[in-house]
Amino acid sequence: MAKKKDVLKRQFKRHKKVGKAPGTITYMGHREAAETKVTIIEYTDSLHKIHYPGDVGQIVAHKDTPTTSWVNIVGLSDESFIEKVGFHFGLNPLILEDIVNTQQRPKIDEYEDYIFGTFRMVYINDNNELIGEHVAMVLMQNCVLVFQELDYDVFNGVRDRISAKSGRIRTKDTDYLFFALLDSIIDNYFVVLEHISHKIETLEDELYENPTPEVARNIQQLKKEVLKIRQWIFPVKELVGRLIDSENPLISKDTKFFLRDALDHSYEINESLQIYREMAMSLMEMYMSNMSNKMNEVMKVLTIMSSIFIPLTFIAGIYGMNFAHMPELHWKYGYFLIWGIMIVVFIGMVFFFKKKNWL
Amino acid sequence: MAKKKDVLKRQFKRHKKVGKAPGTITYMGHREAAETKVTIIEYTDSLHKIHYPGDVGQIVAHKDTPTTSWVNIVGLSDESFIEKVGFHFGLNPLILEDIVNTQQRPKIDEYEDYIFGTFRMVYINDNNELIGEHVAMVLMQNCVLVFQELDYDVFNGVRDRISAKSGRIRTKDTDYLFFALLDSIIDNYFVVLEHISHKIETLEDELYENPTPEVARNIQQLKKEVLKIRQWIFPVKELVGRLIDSENPLISKDTKFFLRDALDHSYEINESLQIYREMAMSLMEMYMSNMSNKMNEVMKVLTIMSSIFIPLTFIAGIYGMNFAHMPELHWKYGYFLIWGIMIVVFIGMVFFFKKKNWL
Amino acid sequence: MAKKKDVLKRQFKRHKKVGKAPGTITYMGHREAAETKVTIIEYTDSLHKIHYPGDVGQIVAHKDTPTTSWVNIVGLSDESFIEKVGFHFGLNPLILEDIVNTQQRPKIDEYEDYIFGTFRMVYINDNNELIGEHVAMVLMQNCVLVFQELDYDVFNGVRDRISAKSGRIRTKDTDYLFFALLDSIIDNYFVVLEHISHKIETLEDELYENPTPEVARNIQQLKKEVLKIRQWIFPVKELVGRLIDSENPLISKDTKFFLRDALDHSYEINESLQIYREMAMSLMEMYMSNMSNKMNEVMKVLTIMSSIFIPLTFIAGIYGMNFAHMPELHWKYGYFLIWGIMIVVFIGMVFFFKKKNWL
Amino acid sequence: MAKKKDVLKRQFKRHKKVGKAPGTITYMGHREAAETKVTIIEYTDSLHKIHYPGDVGQIVAHKDTPTTSWVNIVGLSDESFIEKVGFHFGLNPLILEDIVNTQQRPKIDEYEDYIFGTFRMVYINDNNELIGEHVAMVLMQNCVLVFQELDYDVFNGVRDRISAKSGRIRTKDTDYLFFALLDSIIDNYFVVLEHISHKIETLEDELYENPTPEVARNIQQLKKEVLKIRQWIFPVKELVGRLIDSENPLISKDTKFFLRDALDHSYEINESLQIYREMAMSLMEMYMSNMSNKMNEVMKVLTIMSSIFIPLTFIAGIYGMNFAHMPELHWKYGYFLIWGIMIVVFIGMVFFFKKKNWL
Amino acid sequence: MAKKKDVLKRQFKRHKKVGKAPGTITYMGHREAAETKVTIIEYTDSLHKIHYPGDVGQIVAHKDTPTTSWVNIVGLSDESFIEKVGFHFGLNPLILEDIVNTQQRPKIDEYEDYIFGTFRMVYINDNNELIGEHVAMVLMQNCVLVFQELDYDVFNGVRDRISAKSGRIRTKDTDYLFFALLDSIIDNYFVVLEHISHKIETLEDELYENPTPEVARNIQQLKKEVLKIRQWIFPVKELVGRLIDSENPLISKDTKFFLRDALDHSYEINESLQIYREMAMSLMEMYMSNMSNKMNEVMKVLTIMSSIFIPLTFIAGIYGMNFAHMPELHWKYGYFLIWGIMIVVFIGMVFFFKKKNWL
Ligand SMILES: [Mg+2]
Ligand SMILES: [Mg+2]
Ligand SMILES: [Mg+2]
Ligand SMILES: [Mg+2]
Ligand SMILES: [Mg+2]
Ligand SMILES: [Mg+2]
Ligand SMILES: [Mg+2]
Ligand SMILES: [Mg+2]
Ligand SMILES: [Mg+2]
Ligand SMILES: [Mg+2]
Ligand SMILES: [Mg+2]
Ligand SMILES: [Mg+2]
Ligand SMILES: [Mg+2]
Ligand SMILES: [Mg+2]
Ligand SMILES: [Mg+2]
Ligand SMILES: [Mg+2]
Ligand SMILES: [Mg+2]
Ligand SMILES: [Mg+2]
Ligand SMILES: [Mg+2]
Ligand SMILES: [Mg+2]
Ligand SMILES: [Mg+2]
Ligand SMILES: [Mg+2]
Ligand SMILES: [Mg+2]
Ligand SMILES: [Mg+2]
Ligand SMILES: [Mg+2]
Ligand SMILES: [Mg+2]
Ligand SMILES: [Mg+2]
Ligand SMILES: [Mg+2]
Ligand SMILES: [Mg+2]
Ligand SMILES: [Mg+2]
Ligand SMILES: [Mg+2]
Repeated sequence: MAKKKDVLKRQFKRHKKVGKAPGTITYMGHREAAETKVTIIEYTDSLHKIHYPGDVGQIVAHKDTPTTSWVNIVGLSDESFIEKVGFHFGLNPLILEDIVNTQQRPKIDEYEDYIFGTFRMVYINDNNELIGEHVAMVLMQNCVLVFQELDYDVFNGVRDRISAKSGRIRTKDTDYLFFALLDSIIDNYFVVLEHISHKIETLEDELYENPTPEVARNIQQLKKEVLKIRQWIFPVKELVGRLIDSENPLISKDTKFFLRDALDHSYEINESLQIYREMAMSLMEMYMSNMSNKMNEVMKVLTIMSSIFIPLTFIAGIYGMNFAHMPELHWKYGYFLIWGIMIVVFIGMVFFFKKKNWL
Repeated sequence: MAKKKDVLKRQFKRHKKVGKAPGTITYMGHREAAETKVTIIEYTDSLHKIHYPGDVGQIVAHKDTPTTSWVNIVGLSDESFIEKVGFHFGLNPLILEDIVNTQQRPKIDEYEDYIFGTFRMVYINDNNELIGEHVAMVLMQNCVLVFQELDYDVFNGVRDRISAKSGRIRTKDTDYLFFALLDSIIDNYFVVLEHISHKIETLEDELYENPTPEVARNIQQLKKEVLKIRQWIFPVKELVGRLIDSENPLISKDTKFFLRDALDHSYEINESLQIYREMAMSLMEMYMSNMSNKMNEVMKVLTIMSSIFIPLTFIAGIYGMNFAHMPELHWKYGYFLIWGIMIVVFIGMVFFFKKKNWL
Repeated sequence: MAKKKDVLKRQFKRHKKVGKAPGTITYMGHREAAETKVTIIEYTDSLHKIHYPGDVGQIVAHKDTPTTSWVNIVGLSDESFIEKVGFHFGLNPLILEDIVNTQQRPKIDEYEDYIFGTFRMVYINDNNELIGEHVAMVLMQNCVLVFQELDYDVFNGVRDRISAKSGRIRTKDTDYLFFALLDSIIDNYFVVLEHISHKIETLEDELYENPTPEVARNIQQLKKEVLKIRQWIFPVKELVGRLIDSENPLISKDTKFFLRDALDHSYEINESLQIYREMAMSLMEMYMSNMSNKMNEVMKVLTIMSSIFIPLTFIAGIYGMNFAHMPELHWKYGYFLIWGIMIVVFIGMVFFFKKKNWL
Repeated sequence: MAKKKDVLKRQFKRHKKVGKAPGTITYMGHREAAETKVTIIEYTDSLHKIHYPGDVGQIVAHKDTPTTSWVNIVGLSDESFIEKVGFHFGLNPLILEDIVNTQQRPKIDEYEDYIFGTFRMVYINDNNELIGEHVAMVLMQNCVLVFQELDYDVFNGVRDRISAKSGRIRTKDTDYLFFALLDSIIDNYFVVLEHISHKIETLEDELYENPTPEVARNIQQLKKEVLKIRQWIFPVKELVGRLIDSENPLISKDTKFFLRDALDHSYEINESLQIYREMAMSLMEMYMSNMSNKMNEVMKVLTIMSSIFIPLTFIAGIYGMNFAHMPELHWKYGYFLIWGIMIVVFIGMVFFFKKKNWL
Repeated sequence: MAKKKDVLKRQFKRHKKVGKAPGTITYMGHREAAETKVTIIEYTDSLHKIHYPGDVGQIVAHKDTPTTSWVNIVGLSDESFIEKVGFHFGLNPLILEDIVNTQQRPKIDEYEDYIFGTFRMVYINDNNELIGEHVAMVLMQNCVLVFQELDYDVFNGVRDRISAKSGRIRTKDTDYLFFALLDSIIDNYFVVLEHISHKIETLEDELYENPTPEVARNIQQLKKEVLKIRQWIFPVKELVGRLIDSENPLISKDTKFFLRDALDHSYEINESLQIYREMAMSLMEMYMSNMSNKMNEVMKVLTIMSSIFIPLTFIAGIYGMNFAHMPELHWKYGYFLIWGIMIVVFIGMVFFFKKKNWL
């Protein structure tokens, strides 16, 4: 339970920003979120190097070199560091604000020299927690800057393809790298969808087997997760579409071709999410119908027991009366006669309930 | 039950692709799904031949011959074979990826030399299972490539019309063949709709006769099926519309005329699915209302039995008390008087319940 | 009940067409649906004749005469006859297919020499059944062809206005006749709406007076009828709009003026159907709330009876015990004291339930 | 109750028109609706006269005078009178039909010499009934014709402003008068919204205090009213928008400025209606939840009473048995011991229910 | 409770305006709402002064001075004062009407010399009440007029940034000030969203712990709040978009850049509100499911108690009968045998209920 609460409650920090000037760089995540780690992967078709720069100078050095550099910055809590990086790479303060705003809605902003985008990297981390991590990416002529909050990411496939000498990515420009990272994020949405789909099936099974209130609570939780994920993922299809329509020379016609494939996937993901949403709502209905069934069963037991024994008890009560003059009491087989009557009543009631299909 | 689970769970394999480069050809279906079978139907107005090619070379030979060739490839698990075919026919790797991706959303992609489309062929197979089979089709100048996962298909009508010497199809070009195949897929959607419609009627009847929890579960299952089919069928109307608006010379004006008829059907199918969706939701409501009715009936029996016998038992209890001084006990007709009172009470209660319409 | 099932189940024949070539003329209605009857009303401002042609030749003769001819063909089961008519009037095979396809969705297709439309003629027939009859109409230079499935139609008003010498229709062209027929169909939708509205009011009244499960079933049936009618009527507003925007010289500016009035009505009908749909859904909610009320009433009776007599019976039970030493039993007024206590308990319970407003 | 039925049932007369030619002037309201009353307010900035014309001639005289004349015609049942007025003012028969069709959907039609509009004047009349009165207005160069069904209207504010010498309206043209009347209708929608809002609050309060079935029925009634009002008001925002976009010289740029203000209000009204609709639906949910609460309370009383006294009665029953050998019966304090046990059981049960929070 | 009613009921005054001429300045808020307070903040990059003008003349003096002046007017009940200010600043009467109409829907109107906008400033005031305060702003060449109803506002951040010598705002024009104020309003929406989100979580927790009818009522209240807030906030995103697309020279390209950031936030807020709306609806469902669970629990207790003790009491009743000939009564161990039987029945029932998982 704790896990999900954490995930769902991350957005409670916007009040920090009220009244501040736009462009004020305010980190919205967990302050304790550790030091900043920077890794640079530099490559051409014939070159592949990994750098761990010691200061901002070593980072900025990659800005204008003709090689392709992927600057990966993990940890957004050091606002002054982000500001310095932004300043040297010539980024607009509004963008810097969006980079450290971990609640930023996915967006694409085009500037003259670079294209800026933020997305939600949604994944199941090593502790099996569902995480919606804010990631910001800047596409420039010779490098791609990636800012992410947490160490974990979904980019290892891209790293592998870069380090594999023969990969197509090594022969391509920064726009293809930008696409490849975005594609990894989108591909991973399918994994999250499988996770949701699996959760729905599990809840559905539990529902039929043992519909405890806990199950209802989990259904509720699932609905909130689906809503949240939809909010994170929904804007992506429009953003990818805008990249495809963009006339910015930073994105080649060839890369747009690949982006169209990603657009395709974005549509599919949205449709699936829509279906999962409807399924999640159906689960609650099923839960209510199961409750109703249980109640019916309970009521039948009560009704059968009461309807059989209450009349019998009444008969016994009659002959427990102490009237001086009760002829039956003195009949020789009165007691046995009464037993006979009671057995007949019993059988009659059982037949009645059989006929009603309650037994 | 098993059947439907199978159908609904087919989409759980996307994680296989995370991190792979776009254009990586990864089969997403059942690996065990058997060897690849290729059949080529070659025809002109005066010619009709069926080939079973032994290798890729014999397939590719049909690429540029002036006859019309329908290359039908069944089985998508042999990725290297698909790759070879794709290479020789000059297909883009992204397309090859979509061909073997059995979870691919229906789509149309136009290239310079060919038009690529994937669709869901939805049908009830010989085991009475509802199948949503991925099928990919490529329209080229002189041939139509069809890639499908399973042996069963809905194209026998087209095969018959080709083999019938006098059919219109024999006088037409590949674009008409492409249309005819698509038309068969769409026509078959009507059969699936009839299946759904029949299921709704059956469930509705069961609902009134014997609303077991099993029925509720089947309604739930039906809702999921309708959602799934909608996801499969929904994009088709837009795709057909795009073909009609396309300026690609591969599609003649004459064929567009026929496509408009298919478009018509696509709209009708979508509207009907929408109705079935609403009906399926209504079924659950009916189920709940039936539960409520049953409960009311159970409660009435309990209430009638209790309300009649509890007061009577109380009266009997009174005269079962052992007080030394209870004058009634010694009256000569006390016992019979009490019987009289009890009968009056009984009749009174029966009248009361009659008046309330509970009896 | 039988009636409605009939109406709702008419669409179960689409599988007949799977695999057939487009343009194959396959009647989808009731095969037994009798012979074909043709009537021709021919008129100008000064002329009015009714013909009952014996063969196709006598029908086709009206194609090019300068008078206005309304060719009314009842019965669509004779496919070869329809084909012959179509051939002589120069109609496209795809249109002939739509004429005999009694499940065809309402549509308008414009051709060079004629405009083709199919609609649903919805009416309550003489047996008080709700019928959604397929009707196809072709507007040509000098005649209007009307194909309908059943004898009954809603065109008697138009026939009267034609036979009335002074009617505006006699001075107008075929496009106005086409409009007048369409207008009759649309006007009749209002009658069906009144029928639906009346049904809703009736069900609502039944709901409050005697909410039997039968009522729930009728509500369900009503919802299905509304859904079906909406599917039939919904496309009409778009079709009329398209006729108005058409640049086809067959439709005069003057007639478009009248079509705008029909468009107006189409919008109104759609809005009303939407409202009836919401009302029908509300009925089910009301039904459930009434069930809940009934249940509450039942439970209150049970609770009141039980709560009053169970404690009293307990008191009686106490003094029915056979202990050797029970002082109260030997008190002179013990029995009357106990009666007193029981009366006090009884009154107390009654007060309690009064206070709770359950009595 | 009677009142609302009246309002909601007014639309049941459309069948009167089936088969009639378009442009046939058929009054759809209450035939008995009294004689026609005509009032003409004529004004310029320096002139203000009220006329009660005796015949159509005296009315038509105002058509071409340079003063501004507001011709107000109350009562639409005299079809031949309306026809005569229409003829002399040069109105299209289709318009005359719409004027007397009291079920006409709100619409605007522009003609060369005049602009025609019908609206719903929704108000609470002097008998506190909610009325949706059909009103038709024609804007001409020198006069505005207003046709209304009932005597009551919402135009008194406009009459006052005209009679007040200094009002802006006296200096303006007919288009401003047309706007002022429309504005009065729209302003009055706010009053109806307040009425609905008040009804919702009242029902909500009743719901919590005393949720009788009557309340459920009133909620249902409210939902129908909101649906109806929405149908009446919904088209207005589009109509006003169309007037603003119109290039008709009858409407000055200055008046469009005021129309924009009315457009503003139309949007607001639609949004509020949407909210009221959602609130009305919520009321029913609240009702059901209250029913559920009541039921729970009833059941708790039953369960508590039964669970406490049934075991006690059993204990008393044990010692009411007549076995020859029952040692406890002969114990000196057996009776008191049993009382002790029963008190312990009683206290135990009370504690149990306290713990469950049922007491 | 009182608080929310207040907030929700503020719109009940529109009837005041019915029949008045448009442009009539009618204050719609609380008449008692105190005197008008005016503050002027005047600044350039090198200057910063705060004025408390004594009369309208001192206010209007700022209209044409080259410094940037923020004229903040608190209190809208003095209609003649507002009229005077409006007259001297050259504002259109329709605008003055909107300024004092505290129910005005958010809007933007562009005039030649100024841009007028009204918004809802939504905040939690010092008494922890949710307030939706009407605020109107006029952007002119050299000053920004702000009209607000209540003393409290969300602009203190802007005031601080102006008074801080080095802030960006000091170097910018009135359009930036206008943006900064709007941005403060929008930023504060996030705070309100957090409040709503917090309320949802609180209600959800209460729901599981103690689902009293009070909780249901609070959920209902929450739904109404979300609806209301949505109505207030919804138009903002379109208004900001319109400012961005405006070609009015009053808004510089640079400021549009910042407005785009605000647009971004508007979208995010709308999406979140949509989610909160769905969550609020889910809460009610959860409540109903919890009610159902409680009921099930109650019924189980009743059924278990009744089913166990009713048969036992029957057995005791049997041997409480007074028949002369009842052999068992005279068996030596008859009494103990009966106890044995009763214990067996008891254990049997307990096992039965264990097996049903009710214990
Ligand atoms: Mg989350
Ligand atoms: Mg969430
Ligand atoms: Mg989540
Ligand atoms: Mg894909
Ligand atoms: Mg998918
Ligand atoms: Mg999926
Ligand atoms: Mg499914
Ligand atoms: Mg499915
Ligand atoms: Mg399926
Ligand atoms: Mg259909
Ligand atoms: Mg169908
Ligand atoms: Mg068709
Ligand atoms: Mg139907
Ligand atoms: Mg129907
Ligand atoms: Mg029907
Ligand atoms: Mg209507
Ligand atoms: Mg109607
Ligand atoms: Mg329910
Ligand atoms: Mg009309
Ligand atoms: Mg209504
Ligand atoms: Mg109404
Ligand atoms: Mg009304
Ligand atoms: Mg409002
Ligand atoms: Mg309002
Ligand atoms: Mg509020
Ligand atoms: Mg306004
Ligand atoms: Mg609210
Ligand atoms: Mg509110
Ligand atoms: Mg933002
Ligand atoms: Mg957010
Ligand atoms: Mg948020």
